[in-house]
Amino acid sequence: MVALQELKMYRNFDELASDVLELAKEILPDKLIYLTSFSENQQIILKMSDGNTKILLSEGQVIPIHETVCNRIDFEKRQPLVFPDISKDTCPVDLRTIMKEAKIHSYLGIPIALLNGENFGTLCVAHHEVSEFDDKSIALLQKIARMFSYYLDLERVAFKDSLTNLYNRHYLSKHFEDYSKNGGMIFFLDLDGFKKVNDVHGHDVGDRVLKEVAAKLHQFVENEKECFAVRLGGDEFIVHFSHITSEEEMKNRAEKVLGVLSEWESGFPLSTSIGIAHYSPNSTISLHDVLKRADNALYLAKAAGKNRYQVACL
Amino acid sequence: MVALQELKMYRNFDELASDVLELAKEILPDKLIYLTSFSENQQIILKMSDGNTKILLSEGQVIPIHETVCNRIDFEKRQPLVFPDISKDTCPVDLRTIMKEAKIHSYLGIPIALLNGENFGTLCVAHHEVSEFDDKSIALLQKIARMFSYYLDLERVAFKDSLTNLYNRHYLSKHFEDYSKNGGMIFFLDLDGFKKVNDVHGHDVGDRVLKEVAAKLHQFVENEKECFAVRLGGDEFIVHFSHITSEEEMKNRAEKVLGVLSEWESGFPLSTSIGIAHYSPNSTISLHDVLKRADNALYLAKAAGKNRYQVACL
Repeated sequence: MVALQELKMYRNFDELASDVLELAKEILPDKLIYLTSFSENQQIILKMSDGNTKILLSEGQVIPIHETVCNRIDFEKRQPLVFPDISKDTCPVDLRTIMKEAKIHSYLGIPIALLNGENFGTLCVAHHEVSEFDDKSIALLQKIARMFSYYLDLERVAFKDSLTNLYNRHYLSKHFEDYSKNGGMIFFLDLDGFKKVNDVHGHDVGDRVLKEVAAKLHQFVENEKECFAVRLGGDEFIVHFSHITSEEEMKNRAEKVLGVLSEWESGFPLSTSIGIAHYSPNSTISLHDVLKRADNALYLAKAAGKNRYQVACL
Repeated sequence: MVALQELKMYRNFDELASDVLELAKEILPDKLIYLTSFSENQQIILKMSDGNTKILLSEGQVIPIHETVCNRIDFEKRQPLVFPDISKDTCPVDLRTIMKEAKIHSYLGIPIALLNGENFGTLCVAHHEVSEFDDKSIALLQKIARMFSYYLDLERVAFKDSLTNLYNRHYLSKHFEDYSKNGGMIFFLDLDGFKKVNDVHGHDVGDRVLKEVAAKLHQFVENEKECFAVRLGGDEFIVHFSHITSEEEMKNRAEKVLGVLSEWESGFPLSTSIGIAHYSPNSTISLHDVLKRADNALYLAKAAGKNRYQVACL
């Protein structure tokens, strides 16, 4: 599943999605074609081809995941799902009702998967009448979906850290550029004593530790609202909140991060120091300066004995 | 221009190229479709669609760049080149002869460019008769070519160092895996005093120096046979030769690299130390061990006063 926020970072996404629909439309000219993405428990219709008004779907529509036909696609085997006639037995009863309501009488769904195994979404064909989807058309649509997935993967490479699969500095900058007017908080993390792990046990072991940190941070942000984790480089990480909480809440979060990063599987019990800075809605502060303030606070946390957080003064 | 050797590293290249041809064939079913790539002064026909025997082109065919019509495509503006009838005035006289020999009577060429601005090659349509290439078909082929270029870019990202655009360690491993049976030589380079530049002047300046090193190495390998440059990480670089020379030739090359890396534009006159190791044809040595031997020799070069090379003992 791909966070919608991530999608907004993709350059040319709209343009490419239009290309996909146009090419697919060339293969199946009389059908409605649309692209969707999964996000948590929902499916979102990202883009639809023009010219079919009978089917009751619209761009931007959000469908609960258990009510969507695309969710029944076998992503493991990357097989298309085909219902030439949804009124027939081959289509599960619960789906029949849902699709009938949307005036969909036939359906073809192609999975769009990413290189890391995540399910991005689907390339779908729907028609208000019964359809015969021939093998050749299905194969061509699969080729289009695959080419589109390479585009998606390329975009992800640009703002993901390759070692940890967390976001990278480039993503943080772009996000700050686009959304800083809402205000936010930055936790600047630095592992205590990581250099020693690298020096004594080598880079391979060090990398394993960094991956474990990333996995823990990933789990942490999953349970937070408007929150993502970044690897800046080396053993420096950022947890970014796209909103400001009370000081008490902020300290709660920091304690939680320290806690999460105190249990280790890799056998190198490290601790973490955190410097915290926030920026107000509509402030004119630059990311560089927010990071600097957080880094200064981090320095104080280290100086005070490590394994603790320090909130930056305004 | 893309080295053919690089192309061999691309996963799924054949499969994707076939997808491109099949999709294009769907748009223009009665024409010959083919994919080409530029390499130094040549154009290579990488892949052709089936079913047209009248035109005298074949897969794998190499055409001198000045004799190829694709070379006339405006890559700057990324515009397709269209000759509905090559016997007409609109087609330059010299091309008319060449194309007539290949029995091509009409031609459409779409440029395939990479994100870094390099020209990869072309997606071409040829027919033995006069053709009307309508705008819609051309637009659709452009979309296919663009999607294909995202695939190419993604593959490149996987084995290029993003800072310097040199190859990365992953490429070196893959190359060694596939070609080590031919034997080769490794120059293991480490800049003298680079850490100081980073510490005193900051990472931005350090990165600029690394880019200048990369540019110089790039120029060096361009003039060598079967040779490529790698950034391992930090200020460690590899120059790899896919053949073995005499000891004298080897020393010549090393002197040349030291010379190339002694003139600086960035204002930080650094020198370089080099450790050299070679591996014989059909040897069973691992890349890890070759690198280790080269690294040991590098250590000796550093210890002996830097700005010099040292050949590893066998």
